[in-house]
Amino acid sequence: MPVSTLTWQNGKIKMIDQTRLPAELAYLEINQIEVLGEAIKSLRVRGAPALGIAGAFGALLSAQLFHGEDKTAFFAQLERDMKYLRETRPTAVNLGWALNRMREVMQKFHEQSLPEIKAALQKEALSIFEEDRHSSRALAEHGAALVPQSATVITHCNTGALVTADYGTALGVLFAAYAHGKKLHVFVDETRPLLQGARLNMWELMNEGIDCTLICDNTAAFVMQRQHVDFCIVGADRIAANGDTANKIGTYSLAVNARQHGVPFYVAAPISTIDFSIRTGKEIPIEERSAEEVTNGFGRRTAPEGARVYSPAFDVTPHEFIAAIITEAGVIRPPFEKNLKTIQPECR
Amino acid sequence: MPVSTLTWQNGKIKMIDQTRLPAELAYLEINQIEVLGEAIKSLRVRGAPALGIAGAFGALLSAQLFHGEDKTAFFAQLERDMKYLRETRPTAVNLGWALNRMREVMQKFHEQSLPEIKAALQKEALSIFEEDRHSSRALAEHGAALVPQSATVITHCNTGALVTADYGTALGVLFAAYAHGKKLHVFVDETRPLLQGARLNMWELMNEGIDCTLICDNTAAFVMQRQHVDFCIVGADRIAANGDTANKIGTYSLAVNARQHGVPFYVAAPISTIDFSIRTGKEIPIEERSAEEVTNGFGRRTAPEGARVYSPAFDVTPHEFIAAIITEAGVIRPPFEKNLKTIQPECR
Repeated sequence: MPVSTLTWQNGKIKMIDQTRLPAELAYLEINQIEVLGEAIKSLRVRGAPALGIAGAFGALLSAQLFHGEDKTAFFAQLERDMKYLRETRPTAVNLGWALNRMREVMQKFHEQSLPEIKAALQKEALSIFEEDRHSSRALAEHGAALVPQSATVITHCNTGALVTADYGTALGVLFAAYAHGKKLHVFVDETRPLLQGARLNMWELMNEGIDCTLICDNTAAFVMQRQHVDFCIVGADRIAANGDTANKIGTYSLAVNARQHGVPFYVAAPISTIDFSIRTGKEIPIEERSAEEVTNGFGRRTAPEGARVYSPAFDVTPHEFIAAIITEAGVIRPPFEKNLKTIQPECR
Repeated sequence: MPVSTLTWQNGKIKMIDQTRLPAELAYLEINQIEVLGEAIKSLRVRGAPALGIAGAFGALLSAQLFHGEDKTAFFAQLERDMKYLRETRPTAVNLGWALNRMREVMQKFHEQSLPEIKAALQKEALSIFEEDRHSSRALAEHGAALVPQSATVITHCNTGALVTADYGTALGVLFAAYAHGKKLHVFVDETRPLLQGARLNMWELMNEGIDCTLICDNTAAFVMQRQHVDFCIVGADRIAANGDTANKIGTYSLAVNARQHGVPFYVAAPISTIDFSIRTGKEIPIEERSAEEVTNGFGRRTAPEGARVYSPAFDVTPHEFIAAIITEAGVIRPPFEKNLKTIQPECR
């Protein structure tokens, strides 16, 4: 049973504080927009699909927090809060995607009464949550069909139940394969600088009883050189229309090494991660994170004072390195530019 | 002026405790073999050439610590201490190479008096130190000739003055190029798990005033994808007769990515690092380090209790990824199997 990463409960957002894992499973109850914004920026909640849900719940929270009768003021507050939330993480497309859905509801119900608008926003946010549960499970099942009966796998960054409302994306595929009785050994990239692999993937895999081994990111190539690896699998923060994929920094390095060793490289992501409005990965904005995340990692300063740091949160893996993109609508193979179109949702 | 990493002073080994950098520049004065062994195992002194000097000084220390007239007991103590030191780090060939030189002196002077044998050992240890100073500087000059007038470089693990008696190996090349007025921008891999890049390279480069930027190891590929990089340069812990190179874990991943991006990949190492007795990198023993170095990195546990870890200290880069091996005898190009032979020292 996957953990319950974030839910809407009694007018509040209840979420696991992922920065405290694996030491402690602690929940936050959030009823202020700024607290949600801080939680997103500090990666207390992270992972593209979960950020979509957080955005939807954030818009709902903004609506619920409005007291009064002035619809103009209500819309102004909602717009301001949605803009603030949208800007907390620039690369992950799901956040903006969910906020767009909330705004469309707001516009559609513009002429209704305030309680009706609030109810419609609540319905939409809970739909986004429910859809994510179903798409996560469907994606996992499509992916599980690709997994051999006994498989050695490498994964990068956390993509399990902590990033969705259910199984997860890349890790969800492994959970589903394992549930079908397949034998797995997962090499887990620790995922510098914030160690989502070490902290979160290891926690999720060990909780499920799946055989797993932690490695430094720089070790994956040597593992592929010295032993058989069946495939690499990662999530995505934004996928361009041609299949170029932005994901956690280190993904591209892993993809290059996978190709060098003839190891298939899979991306697992819900359709909401695909940004059909951009043609290639070059157009994806790459968020840079603070130097301190690298130099003051885990309790101790590990670089000289004043050291300059370049810490992009994401990189872009060109589509030609990707063997398949696993979505809730099925497994998409190259040519992605053509084949992704077959699952493009109609414009809302 | 390079820092003085380890020297023989008043019958003791004086060395920088590299585990305390960059926070603190602290020196150890070592006059017990077990303390030296601990210092090597804990990486207070590290880097292939410096380990050779440490081994030579260790054998000298063992000889100096012997009091009495019994030559049989003297030789037994020396053999026991040299065996102990040899086993502290299995991959770096220079340690064994220097201890072999000390043993050859011991054998050559076997019939002399104890004071004469001790004096010969001291002379040999100081020769190894002096030769390293000269070969480090010669290597740096040969390498500097390869560096364009303005260059962007990526390097992995620490290979500066801290690993030799002078300039260093890979970083030594950059120091020499900079001293010749060349303009450099060095991207420094932090080098997980022990962050020798973040802690030591950044400290050395910033001390020299060389423009440098710290990156996580997994970021080098993205840097090469998005901007022009002139070359990658690394050191070596052991080079097989065919050019296959064992170096800090992560080197191979960087080499694969360098090839993907058409970036020349250089190895800088003294001839003592070449193990002509082994044909290929497959024969190089790979030291594994403890899980705690990965999971309890820097003051805080960052993986669940009981997490299994695979932490090889080194990987092996096959010779076909290497554009040149820079030594004190000149720059060696492929085919390495043939061309390395031209610098093979005569059998002693």
